[in-house]
Amino acid sequence: MRRKLVFGGCIAALALLVLAGPATAQEVSDQYDRTVSSGAEAMNMVVLDNIFIFLAGVLVFLMQPGFALVEAGLTRAKNAANIMMKNLMDMCIGVLAFAAIGWGIAYPGDFNGWVSSAGLGIAGFFDGALVDISPEALASDDFYPLAVPVDFFFQAAFAATAATIVSGAVAGRTKFVGYLCYSALVTAFIYPIVVSWKWGAGWLDELGFIDFAGSGLVHMTGGFAALAGAMVLGPRIGKYGDDGKPRALPGHSIPLAMAGVLLLFIGWFGFNPGSQLQADMAVPVIAVLTAFAAASGGGAAMLTSWLTMSKPDVSMAGNGILAGLVAICSGIAEMSWLGTMITGGVAGVIVVLSVLGIERAGIDDPVGAFSVHGVCGFWGLLATGLFATTSPINGAEESAGLLYGGGAGLLADQVVGGVVIAVFVFAAAGAMFMILKAAGLLRVDPADEVAGLDISEHGSPGYGPDILAATATV
Amino acid sequence: MRRKLVFGGCIAALALLVLAGPATAQEVSDQYDRTVSSGAEAMNMVVLDNIFIFLAGVLVFLMQPGFALVEAGLTRAKNAANIMMKNLMDMCIGVLAFAAIGWGIAYPGDFNGWVSSAGLGIAGFFDGALVDISPEALASDDFYPLAVPVDFFFQAAFAATAATIVSGAVAGRTKFVGYLCYSALVTAFIYPIVVSWKWGAGWLDELGFIDFAGSGLVHMTGGFAALAGAMVLGPRIGKYGDDGKPRALPGHSIPLAMAGVLLLFIGWFGFNPGSQLQADMAVPVIAVLTAFAAASGGGAAMLTSWLTMSKPDVSMAGNGILAGLVAICSGIAEMSWLGTMITGGVAGVIVVLSVLGIERAGIDDPVGAFSVHGVCGFWGLLATGLFATTSPINGAEESAGLLYGGGAGLLADQVVGGVVIAVFVFAAAGAMFMILKAAGLLRVDPADEVAGLDISEHGSPGYGPDILAATATV
Amino acid sequence: MRRKLVFGGCIAALALLVLAGPATAQEVSDQYDRTVSSGAEAMNMVVLDNIFIFLAGVLVFLMQPGFALVEAGLTRAKNAANIMMKNLMDMCIGVLAFAAIGWGIAYPGDFNGWVSSAGLGIAGFFDGALVDISPEALASDDFYPLAVPVDFFFQAAFAATAATIVSGAVAGRTKFVGYLCYSALVTAFIYPIVVSWKWGAGWLDELGFIDFAGSGLVHMTGGFAALAGAMVLGPRIGKYGDDGKPRALPGHSIPLAMAGVLLLFIGWFGFNPGSQLQADMAVPVIAVLTAFAAASGGGAAMLTSWLTMSKPDVSMAGNGILAGLVAICSGIAEMSWLGTMITGGVAGVIVVLSVLGIERAGIDDPVGAFSVHGVCGFWGLLATGLFATTSPINGAEESAGLLYGGGAGLLADQVVGGVVIAVFVFAAAGAMFMILKAAGLLRVDPADEVAGLDISEHGSPGYGPDILAATATV
Repeated sequence: MRRKLVFGGCIAALALLVLAGPATAQEVSDQYDRTVSSGAEAMNMVVLDNIFIFLAGVLVFLMQPGFALVEAGLTRAKNAANIMMKNLMDMCIGVLAFAAIGWGIAYPGDFNGWVSSAGLGIAGFFDGALVDISPEALASDDFYPLAVPVDFFFQAAFAATAATIVSGAVAGRTKFVGYLCYSALVTAFIYPIVVSWKWGAGWLDELGFIDFAGSGLVHMTGGFAALAGAMVLGPRIGKYGDDGKPRALPGHSIPLAMAGVLLLFIGWFGFNPGSQLQADMAVPVIAVLTAFAAASGGGAAMLTSWLTMSKPDVSMAGNGILAGLVAICSGIAEMSWLGTMITGGVAGVIVVLSVLGIERAGIDDPVGAFSVHGVCGFWGLLATGLFATTSPINGAEESAGLLYGGGAGLLADQVVGGVVIAVFVFAAAGAMFMILKAAGLLRVDPADEVAGLDISEHGSPGYGPDILAATATV
Repeated sequence: MRRKLVFGGCIAALALLVLAGPATAQEVSDQYDRTVSSGAEAMNMVVLDNIFIFLAGVLVFLMQPGFALVEAGLTRAKNAANIMMKNLMDMCIGVLAFAAIGWGIAYPGDFNGWVSSAGLGIAGFFDGALVDISPEALASDDFYPLAVPVDFFFQAAFAATAATIVSGAVAGRTKFVGYLCYSALVTAFIYPIVVSWKWGAGWLDELGFIDFAGSGLVHMTGGFAALAGAMVLGPRIGKYGDDGKPRALPGHSIPLAMAGVLLLFIGWFGFNPGSQLQADMAVPVIAVLTAFAAASGGGAAMLTSWLTMSKPDVSMAGNGILAGLVAICSGIAEMSWLGTMITGGVAGVIVVLSVLGIERAGIDDPVGAFSVHGVCGFWGLLATGLFATTSPINGAEESAGLLYGGGAGLLADQVVGGVVIAVFVFAAAGAMFMILKAAGLLRVDPADEVAGLDISEHGSPGYGPDILAATATV
Repeated sequence: MRRKLVFGGCIAALALLVLAGPATAQEVSDQYDRTVSSGAEAMNMVVLDNIFIFLAGVLVFLMQPGFALVEAGLTRAKNAANIMMKNLMDMCIGVLAFAAIGWGIAYPGDFNGWVSSAGLGIAGFFDGALVDISPEALASDDFYPLAVPVDFFFQAAFAATAATIVSGAVAGRTKFVGYLCYSALVTAFIYPIVVSWKWGAGWLDELGFIDFAGSGLVHMTGGFAALAGAMVLGPRIGKYGDDGKPRALPGHSIPLAMAGVLLLFIGWFGFNPGSQLQADMAVPVIAVLTAFAAASGGGAAMLTSWLTMSKPDVSMAGNGILAGLVAICSGIAEMSWLGTMITGGVAGVIVVLSVLGIERAGIDDPVGAFSVHGVCGFWGLLATGLFATTSPINGAEESAGLLYGGGAGLLADQVVGGVVIAVFVFAAAGAMFMILKAAGLLRVDPADEVAGLDISEHGSPGYGPDILAATATV
């Protein structure tokens, strides 16, 4: 009881502070005047928009080596080449499958005129490579500064991100051919369907659901597909003892894994600020809030691991940074700096408890992908429902959070969105993994698993005999 | 016969699709109106051009850790520090030698007024640090938006790239001092001479030869110098058995190598889009095509290795990504998305066959540098001769590819350019390596080679005893 | 005597060459016309300024994985996870402590209106998220194009850099909780106090002291705190034999360390060019000079290690690159290309001699942090006093260097600044470390040190048993 009072008092005090804070990224963007008249002024503005989003997309692609290193580092040396290969192919297949099929599903209708003129696929891809900057177009409320290619580039990087989240959760026991099928299906169908609901102007968008940079659309999609994969596959050999209790299967290189976390941190400076989709003064605000969320998540996870595991755990701190980053994606344009820090900090607590709980529940997710992306992605959606101070995007009544006089409406929308994404992705990915299992394409033979996937799936080890210790078959 | 028919039919069908595709990056750029009148409008345009190319240059420099990690990872642990040192020095020597000598050779005449006022070398370096944006200058057909320093910065990053390609091919047996000589000579003379033929407005440019971002000028130069080095040096001890058959000398860390591939992938988003040399709407088109080529190359190499080596090989897939990227550099501004994918995909097939063939031919190229950069660079030149849809740069009749009604003229030009680059670089680099060999500066003693170059050349191991396995002297 | 004559002759010859060189980045910037009239022209200019500094800040954050890899690679495997954790937390704590306290100290008064309206801390953080581009504001001499969030973002990245320098110097023997205290105090108080003296328009600024990008403010602060930490802690067990002579405790992974050096090299393209604080034509000039300084430093350190240690040492070459980069930060806007190369090259010599000397003096700085950042940071300040050709920033008489007719005035200012920074930081950080020591929070128990901090401080190893060699407890 007393704890609850203390907790409530804290929240109230914080809420006041938040209310006192003047501005969100969205408000900065709204106050920012982009009226241009002449052709050259418009050209300069639009080219900067497109070049900036291109560069933001490059930063998002930098998350690919980040994910690869995190996942390789947190698993065992005998599977390291397999993890890297899966990440290489996520990027290759992700780009091609999203171009051929996914993009058309994610952005149906006449998004920038592309799909309407070309149908599914990439045949008409560069029709929209120029932006109409005639005075009429500029004056239109629908003026959108990005050309189709840069839009595609940025979104393809997101699709590759959604796909790559799964590879860590299914590490150490999955057939490579099954993984390829998964990767293609997620980037061609599952992820684009979810995206279409919001960013493709679908039902979640009409509902008033807020997901600025993808806590739900990107991270929950990856996270719940990861959960489905880990559950259908079952745990790695040796992960649980005869008593059913989990045993540590330590990652082979914390330095590689944490270097990956730092690359992801940096890549997120493309992920969130780039989601502003134009070069304006809200971009640096979003960048600062991204750093705040990461720092809060990392600090909170370190402290939580210290309290629950007796020592400050390195990989938990790294996962806490990622958890804070995942959670803030949804509401970052609508939150003050304090809402951001609370969102990130709570994510850092949640991720530690979730990783420990998932492990105890008998689900073997070697890198904590579901906890980071699925659980903290969902938390991010809820946090928006609590802390969003304004939401002029839809102008709907329910568009402020519970703590800012908006009632429970936005929160309810966020819950609906989160639950539907979770259920759909879990079901679709689960069905897919079960079909692959039934077809004998999912799990490697026990002997191959013990020997390591580098040998069994790819024919050569990920580390040479000059590096691999004699104890390498743990 | 039947195969040929099928193949011909495929090509014909593809050609139709390609013809149906509306636009290339070059066409986008041509349609894009950069007319500016006032000083401030021009200033904004020109500053964005220069800042963008600066940032593109930074991305190209990111290829340096990429190359270093690929090369270190694909060779043995006992030579890892030596590989890193060679890459550090490529960057140091590359920048200084290209500034002092190479730049003046590559861009003779009055390229931006720099060399004419300063002669060889860097004495007058910053004369051209501002861009004339007077109305007369802007209205001129020769208006060029880049200042000399940013031009130099971008081109120096390319020179360092050309130099660093060789270090992997000569890994494990080369004296460090000999390598330093090589690195200085390539960036000061060999690479700049080749560049002068096309980007320096030389004879290949007059011929109508197309090499937008350097499949030939950069990658073939590095690749054929690598071939010369590997041949003059001879194979590493133990690479070939008494029966003359090659034996595997596995790389020590696939995770490092593939992280390097991913960094190279990202760095290429500076290499190709930056080669547009201004910030316009063609940049995102080029970025998307870069990703398509890499993805096609990676996928095709994976499948090819699966078919020829029975399992999907990780380092082959990584080399396939690089092969696709190398091959598309030449024609990326003149190709549709489908031409791009075919170019990248074919490169992915070629690189696997080339790596296996080169090894069987008795040439020990530990990382496949010649196959990736030399062979696929040449393929990229040919692909431009086949798939280029337009080539308004020179306005010459032969400037469309064979499949687009341009006849064999462009293809012939590309063959001429490729052959001359190959012969010149192979001869010049070969002579250089033979002189170094005669001077006793090229190959280390057998005992040193067995002990590893980290010890023999640099006096301390690349890995501590806490990491290096007891079997480290393989 | 003869040597002195030769040396003096060289300097004189060089000085003539330098005088002949036409331009510095500062002069380029001065000649560059940023007059804008209309709202849209001003908007385009200001948005590009802010987006560019945001991207430069992202590049500075890329230095965090760079530092982490350098420090982890140059120390032993049993402490690798601890090093990574310290670097993760530097970034988290650095951002939060600098936001809450440091920023208000560093930029007191009305720097962009932020602190005056908000006091210490971040409550009023986004008041300054827009930039006033009214004609009156644009015409003002005080016009400053950066919004508060992007200013904060860029400066927070610098604060995290200053903090992270220390972690390598205290590697292998420091309690994690003590390190956390250090990191918070440096980013909240010590670093901001130093910054306030110059960039916060304090007494060093009034004096005419020049430190464009922080040879003194950032690197000496980190470097002298590192010295204090290493001295208060004492050497690692086993570093000095019974005879008092140093023994090599080799780093566990030169590839990781040198990949870190290359990332730092690239991050410096944000650190220096971004310090121009606007997007203008001086940016590429600064970028080129940054590359020249790094290349000169790396080359000089390689040669120096060859002469003094008989072989070209890899980690010395890497430290030489960093030394050149550190040293050029101060004067890069005021130096010609030749002054830049001399500054970088001398730094490369100094760093090798300093590392060897510090080790011989009984101070155990495992990664050479003091030599790179402290000693070469000081050299950079002096170099500005020697080679600065112009300094229109303050318009003071003493603002040209000794070799450019400015007399000894600027040099004296640089000495004063350097000495005060060194003394203040060494004293403040020394006191802090001694208090932590007295409180029993600084050094781990000997048994824990031998076992490695990964186990003792964080409860799990940084490398799995599949990688860690049996000899791992060296």
